[in-house]
Amino acid sequence: MKIAIFGYGNIARGVESAVVQNPDTKLYGVFTRRTADKVTTVSGVPVFGASEILSHKGRFDVLVVCGGSATDLPVLSPMLARDFNIVDSFDTHPKIPSFFRSVDDAAKSGGTLAVISGGWDPGLFSLSRLYGSAVLPDGCDYTFWGRGVSQGHSDAVRHVDGVADARQYTVPVEEAVAAVRSGKCPELKTADKHRRECYVVLKPGADPEKVERDIKTMPDYFADYDTEVHFITAEELRKEHSGLPHGGFVIRTGKTGFGKENTHTIEYSLKLDSNPEFTGSVLVALARAASRMSACGETGCRTIFDIPPALLSPLSPEEQRAKYL
Amino acid sequence: MKIAIFGYGNIARGVESAVVQNPDTKLYGVFTRRTADKVTTVSGVPVFGASEILSHKGRFDVLVVCGGSATDLPVLSPMLARDFNIVDSFDTHPKIPSFFRSVDDAAKSGGTLAVISGGWDPGLFSLSRLYGSAVLPDGCDYTFWGRGVSQGHSDAVRHVDGVADARQYTVPVEEAVAAVRSGKCPELKTADKHRRECYVVLKPGADPEKVERDIKTMPDYFADYDTEVHFITAEELRKEHSGLPHGGFVIRTGKTGFGKENTHTIEYSLKLDSNPEFTGSVLVALARAASRMSACGETGCRTIFDIPPALLSPLSPEEQRAKYL
Repeated sequence: MKIAIFGYGNIARGVESAVVQNPDTKLYGVFTRRTADKVTTVSGVPVFGASEILSHKGRFDVLVVCGGSATDLPVLSPMLARDFNIVDSFDTHPKIPSFFRSVDDAAKSGGTLAVISGGWDPGLFSLSRLYGSAVLPDGCDYTFWGRGVSQGHSDAVRHVDGVADARQYTVPVEEAVAAVRSGKCPELKTADKHRRECYVVLKPGADPEKVERDIKTMPDYFADYDTEVHFITAEELRKEHSGLPHGGFVIRTGKTGFGKENTHTIEYSLKLDSNPEFTGSVLVALARAASRMSACGETGCRTIFDIPPALLSPLSPEEQRAKYL
Repeated sequence: MKIAIFGYGNIARGVESAVVQNPDTKLYGVFTRRTADKVTTVSGVPVFGASEILSHKGRFDVLVVCGGSATDLPVLSPMLARDFNIVDSFDTHPKIPSFFRSVDDAAKSGGTLAVISGGWDPGLFSLSRLYGSAVLPDGCDYTFWGRGVSQGHSDAVRHVDGVADARQYTVPVEEAVAAVRSGKCPELKTADKHRRECYVVLKPGADPEKVERDIKTMPDYFADYDTEVHFITAEELRKEHSGLPHGGFVIRTGKTGFGKENTHTIEYSLKLDSNPEFTGSVLVALARAASRMSACGETGCRTIFDIPPALLSPLSPEEQRAKYL
């Protein structure tokens, strides 16, 4: 199975390393909107200009589209789905329904197969929410993120006046986790479930008190949260906060029995050393499924909800049943 | 969707209560191999003799076949799959491949749809093993069971000379769990991962030392394990050990990155107040999927690996994407 990558940021490199790692997948090349001969891939695979992608039509099985969900993917995915089987990691949850329709239209008109919103949330966490609700209809579910680096929140801190660099960690609130695990279905907002830790390098001459106040009062990002600000040196940031770890967990609790007398807890948790590499690994498994569905003549847009789990595995159905069932 | 149940033991009652709980499912009736008018259902649904089941053909959508995996299901599931869409919880792992083939033959010849080996292991735990291996190919997975009541091991203790009644709990070994979570992929046998706690009521005049020795040296069941035997009264057994709690967890750890430098941990855990009610809840979600696949003209045998997750949920695909993705 030949996989190509569109874009070459963190997630794209995660996809690249996952393709190299899987014995049944091979990397065709990377398409970039930058000047192609100025981009060098880690694996040494060829780099092509994005504008010439149509001339490569038919030479690979699936294109993994890597880009931001705010402005890149809403344009790129429907455009590329007209000519290629694609997989992407579109993650703006409230916009998924309309994004789905636009990619579905494109893929149907092009006779291609697209899988959108892959990764771990949306992705594996979504699966856990869906399976949990199907099995325990009389219950509630909660998603906690962290401890891990939020790139959006780190960027927000970097834009504060007087900040040279910063890293923000999202951290689940222990008391909220315990309340959820108890099975009591507490009402919790995102800000009740998470606190925020910021590690900040100041610009020379910046006022730490003002910077801390500006961060903690920033609407949407920090104002509603319990936020800690730690000032550190550029050297400390580089040494101790250069990774992109993340993770979190989905918990569903629910009742069964004629008198609803029994409580059950389903918990799915991820601890990831590298968010982009893990996301890339999920995208490659989805690319395998996309390639297989397309080979069966399926067209249109899919999500991880529509994909029989068997299609994600390199093993045959017989091997899967013998080894994993 | 109309669901019928074959058999009326613990799991069947779990299915019964789950069908009542789901708004889109309705109970058609229970088929029993006992004398029908001597069986009363909790929900008050009609009871029919097993021998008259063919006269009910076409009156319900799916038959959930409840019976033991040792002798019941290998006969019942292939037989019933000739005339009905069925779901079962066949759980003898090494025999699944041959069982699958015999049910597949029957369902194909009858034009029906069968889902075998539903529940949590095999079932939800199998899913976790499959998804985990597809996403992290360079890793290893471990399944721990418990803390929970093993009915097979409880029965084994009950058959020891001098034992009036007994309950056996399977308990994960904490050190083994910690070693697995570390990502080091330790080599562990089932007996390294679990210990066994037995609560035993003696018959009058029985010798506790001999009973304890007979239990601890029982091959396959206890001899290889760290086993504790506690003698209690019939009253204590009834009061403190009458439930059927269970659970456990599946952990997959794996490496990613060009130098395999990053480690990731996926953990799926269940804590169940009632093993048969939770199993019944999974079987009803699978029955929903079986009914939908059959309505689309699909025939033959399936496992949870072959079923798009969307088919398990009562919600429409649009609702699922908006709510759970």
